[in-house]
Amino acid sequence: MRMTLHTDYALRILIFVAAQPSGICTVNDVVEAYGLSRHHLMKVAQHLRHLGFIGTTRGRAGGIRLAATPDKINIGALVRLTENDFGLVECLEAGGGACTISPACRLKGMFAEALDAYLAVLDRYTLGHVMQNRTLLRRLLGGMSDAA
Amino acid sequence: MRMTLHTDYALRILIFVAAQPSGICTVNDVVEAYGLSRHHLMKVAQHLRHLGFIGTTRGRAGGIRLAATPDKINIGALVRLTENDFGLVECLEAGGGACTISPACRLKGMFAEALDAYLAVLDRYTLGHVMQNRTLLRRLLGGMSDAA
Repeated sequence: MRMTLHTDYALRILIFVAAQPSGICTVNDVVEAYGLSRHHLMKVAQHLRHLGFIGTTRGRAGGIRLAATPDKINIGALVRLTENDFGLVECLEAGGGACTISPACRLKGMFAEALDAYLAVLDRYTLGHVMQNRTLLRRLLGGMSDAA
Repeated sequence: MRMTLHTDYALRILIFVAAQPSGICTVNDVVEAYGLSRHHLMKVAQHLRHLGFIGTTRGRAGGIRLAATPDKINIGALVRLTENDFGLVECLEAGGGACTISPACRLKGMFAEALDAYLAVLDRYTLGHVMQNRTLLRRLLGGMSDAA
């Protein structure tokens, strides 16, 4: 059971931006910090902007910044928007899949209930909670000092 | 977010066997009922046998049968055994992945808690609950009548 890289990368971008003392960075900074594909991170950053999680500033000192404070960015809400496929089993796919027994099978309801419980846990957390080890996060993301 | 086909097929095999009036069937019967790959279903059936969910009987009237009554086959226990990858995000992979911020990031704990909540729901259900629409399930699985 895995989430998509899209969700994984979206979370990493938001954590990186939230860790910046200036509150602003470029996608290239994110690429360097995590060693991930620039192409993929750029697409995810565009999607995050489209969803309203980040804003962009143009110009020499421009870059991406959070569109809200970390305590206002809910992890459950983010995952619901970035994870575009919750088809845990075929019958939960958009369109319902083609499983023969789908009209009678009670698994569908059980997996839907389990998914609700999964997301309900994430609904209790914000990016603010994720950033509680901010000092260490900054250090791991490229040696930024606390004073910076 | 998806589970593997291995788990999906394991559930379908158990439902098919549980729907048999005689309590016994062949993997070919399962292949025909769902229109799935024989090769893949055979592998999953071997794994289910290895895990102790089904037993096999040799000979002309042989085949596969449940190793316990449906109300003793727990869905959470099954999914924990058939789903071999609960690496929802990279840091939850076996081995911990390579994410730079893994030592400080609190997401790992949040996703682990969400996964626990997911599995805790499935722990409340058995194959017996899945089979509550047995009459309709039988009909969908190949026109078997109730009287059969």
